Amino acid sequence: MLSKDLINKLHDFLPAEAVLHETEDLRPYECDGLSAYRQTPMIVVLPQTESQIIQVLQLCDATKTPVVARGAGTGLSGGALPHAEGILMSLAKLNRILTLDPFARTARVQPGVRNLAISDAAKPFGLYYAPDPSSQIACSIGGNVAENSGGVHCLKYGLTVHNILKLRVLTIAGEILEIGGDGLDSAGFDLLALMTGSEGMLGIVTEITVKLNPIPEKAQLVMAAFDNIEKAGNAVANVIAAGIIPAGMEMMDKITIHAVEAFLHAGYDMNAQAILLCESDGTSEEVADEITRINAIMKASGATNISTSRNEAERLSFWAGRKAAFPAAGRVSPDYYCMDGTIPRKHLAQVLSGIEALSEEYGLRCMNVFHAGDGNLHPLILYDANTPGELEKTEEFGAKILEMCIHAGGTITGEHGVGMEKINQMCTQFKSNELEIFHGVKAAFDPQGLLNPGKAVPTLHRCAELGAMHVHRGAEKFPDLPRF
Amino acid sequence: MLSKDLINKLHDFLPAEAVLHETEDLRPYECDGLSAYRQTPMIVVLPQTESQIIQVLQLCDATKTPVVARGAGTGLSGGALPHAEGILMSLAKLNRILTLDPFARTARVQPGVRNLAISDAAKPFGLYYAPDPSSQIACSIGGNVAENSGGVHCLKYGLTVHNILKLRVLTIAGEILEIGGDGLDSAGFDLLALMTGSEGMLGIVTEITVKLNPIPEKAQLVMAAFDNIEKAGNAVANVIAAGIIPAGMEMMDKITIHAVEAFLHAGYDMNAQAILLCESDGTSEEVADEITRINAIMKASGATNISTSRNEAERLSFWAGRKAAFPAAGRVSPDYYCMDGTIPRKHLAQVLSGIEALSEEYGLRCMNVFHAGDGNLHPLILYDANTPGELEKTEEFGAKILEMCIHAGGTITGEHGVGMEKINQMCTQFKSNELEIFHGVKAAFDPQGLLNPGKAVPTLHRCAELGAMHVHRGAEKFPDLPRF
Repeated sequence: MLSKDLINKLHDFLPAEAVLHETEDLRPYECDGLSAYRQTPMIVVLPQTESQIIQVLQLCDATKTPVVARGAGTGLSGGALPHAEGILMSLAKLNRILTLDPFARTARVQPGVRNLAISDAAKPFGLYYAPDPSSQIACSIGGNVAENSGGVHCLKYGLTVHNILKLRVLTIAGEILEIGGDGLDSAGFDLLALMTGSEGMLGIVTEITVKLNPIPEKAQLVMAAFDNIEKAGNAVANVIAAGIIPAGMEMMDKITIHAVEAFLHAGYDMNAQAILLCESDGTSEEVADEITRINAIMKASGATNISTSRNEAERLSFWAGRKAAFPAAGRVSPDYYCMDGTIPRKHLAQVLSGIEALSEEYGLRCMNVFHAGDGNLHPLILYDANTPGELEKTEEFGAKILEMCIHAGGTITGEHGVGMEKINQMCTQFKSNELEIFHGVKAAFDPQGLLNPGKAVPTLHRCAELGAMHVHRGAEKFPDLPRF
Repeated sequence: MLSKDLINKLHDFLPAEAVLHETEDLRPYECDGLSAYRQTPMIVVLPQTESQIIQVLQLCDATKTPVVARGAGTGLSGGALPHAEGILMSLAKLNRILTLDPFARTARVQPGVRNLAISDAAKPFGLYYAPDPSSQIACSIGGNVAENSGGVHCLKYGLTVHNILKLRVLTIAGEILEIGGDGLDSAGFDLLALMTGSEGMLGIVTEITVKLNPIPEKAQLVMAAFDNIEKAGNAVANVIAAGIIPAGMEMMDKITIHAVEAFLHAGYDMNAQAILLCESDGTSEEVADEITRINAIMKASGATNISTSRNEAERLSFWAGRKAAFPAAGRVSPDYYCMDGTIPRKHLAQVLSGIEALSEEYGLRCMNVFHAGDGNLHPLILYDANTPGELEKTEEFGAKILEMCIHAGGTITGEHGVGMEKINQMCTQFKSNELEIFHGVKAAFDPQGLLNPGKAVPTLHRCAELGAMHVHRGAEKFPDLPRF
């Protein structure tokens, strides 16, 4: 349908200010947090109620118009990149916390509610919402569901999927699905997990019931410096092997330490090749016991320098450097490219050496700062977009890192999703019959393929054109890591 | 295809003893743990290798022959009930533990491995597999995946879906899908959760990679007696509200206490209206701290009698009564019917009163023994199949209990699955557009509908014929519980 006709029809049920179509009004929506990909949408709509969303979806369904949902636009894989001939639906105005039940420890919220706003609302009851992506001040819970977001604390508290109970979802036909329940299990196929992380391709979420946790009585942080990155990797394994599940376990390499120290003066050990931050939370007794054990393991693993936070101010200052790693990267390089891949913990040291070798090969620096406990890497490739060819080199370097993750038995995404960014790597990770199952599931919800088309799951045609090498479960087939 | 022709084709790749078709050979397979439903299959096959399974599936696919997978046959909802014109595929001979990696804390096992055999194999490494259905001595891990089984400890350690990392699955076309990964998240739609609990309707699992946990250093049990079931229900809520997640929290009502005490002489308080068993596990320090807090909460909640296990022998003897509840029911009644429904914990007392009222109405006794911590009820209706009409009354009573669970905002299954038993209640729990999504997902994996047809997800036609009342999310619509 022509843009003009669609706009007219949208005006039947949306106020004028909720339908954007002038170029300058569309501009802010042309990309999400992955700004390397940009596309102006045909129309942006800003519904304020579920019934308006239903009408938009019914119109899209009837006119075969693609529709892309957008939360706060902080996503890092281009999942909310608009479609040139489609409607971009911002859910920002659905931003109410509908109920908060401190007894059941749940909150029912709209998708546009900011992640941190849930914890703020729960705080007076001594509760909080556990998943804490770095963007938690800005990112929306709807976007978290779409990407199955994690965060520093997901090692102990799980990803978004582990922290939600129910979803209210609209299909492309505008029909309501109520998914999940208050119990541990629910009857029928597990649509709650299927929907979580489906990147807006199966339905539009209009309500989320999240679990709330009691705020831990105490949290304490051990900072351990190592003169060798392999020793730091082994320390991670040793903590886990001792049966400890830290609230967070983060690693920074030398280049990251230097970048953040120059920026923040957090007191990090500048001689270290790697720093581990390992947090314990719980009752005072639990924390005291766990911190003693973590200290002993760090020492036995060869840490050259170990500090334990003595109070809340010190704990936050130890964290400050880690949390400022991205802005610090922005200070030491005109541009950076944040990768996201996951590997089994046992391959940490090998994969980090592999990244170092690639860094030399491409002549590009790479900062490694990541969720070590769950093997979720976030290499930041530093580059200058104004140097001709450097963006292309960066993308090639990044793609090789992801292939290395697959070779190591890992996956091409840890918590940022596939979106537009990693769609080609999906051809590498999955076989064609596995991709066909994904397409079949998609068709069960969205037979015309109108919800966020072209994202997350590549067509078989695309994969064939790429001639993608299938190195599925590469670790078993190619034991000599790293490969690139 | 005629049975004779199928048998001939099966003999092309299966040895004679792996293809059963004489009536007396088929008899042991005519039901699973839900013996009220019986059906002789056309043929039983006992493959020993994955390639044999692939050939069976390709034959079924080509000849449009239904195929029902069976593990140990301990399921309680008739999920493995054979199809009269189909092949029953026993996976009992695929019973090898393929790898056990104590460093990664995983084991890769075949579907016919018994649940407890995994923990036995892991024990020398100080590890165990957490989900512990009551049938764990006999039930197979493949069946656990099919039903997403729980157990006494799932409140703290989760259901099967939370304790597996990867599945190797065959589609009805005999194609291999490798699902899941070592990391927390995986790319694409979450097929691991979708497959878990899908009751053999989406594929045949040939390998399962399970997580292993360190065996807790210590476990200790608090047994608290109450003179009023409502007080016991509130004690459950108070423990959870204090931020404690017990390793297990089980409740028994008076009729159960008397039945097991007569059987076992476990030392239970015969004056109690309800007994709570609340377990803590972890390091000695953690357990000591938690047990002190649990004791205080039980006292404040009005317990009339509190005992804490002083040693491992005493802990096991406190548990013995709970574990013997089903055999005890068998002693006090010729037959019993074990129900399985889940409700929000806050409605425990109300639903238990509702069950009591139904018990009087139907003139049938009902024992309540259940996973109180996660609101998973297991009412045991006591009846005599030889009394004309009593089985029918029992089934009607059971159906009303499940409807009450839905009214309370719960679900018709906690951990036993839907299978054949609760297929009509699915019409009550789900709306037709939600059932259509289930059918769409099923079709993505099994377009001809050959995998375990007629189970778990009812056809819309069946629901229409039942004239099922749709009381979806009844708790919100009908706040005055209980309803029946």
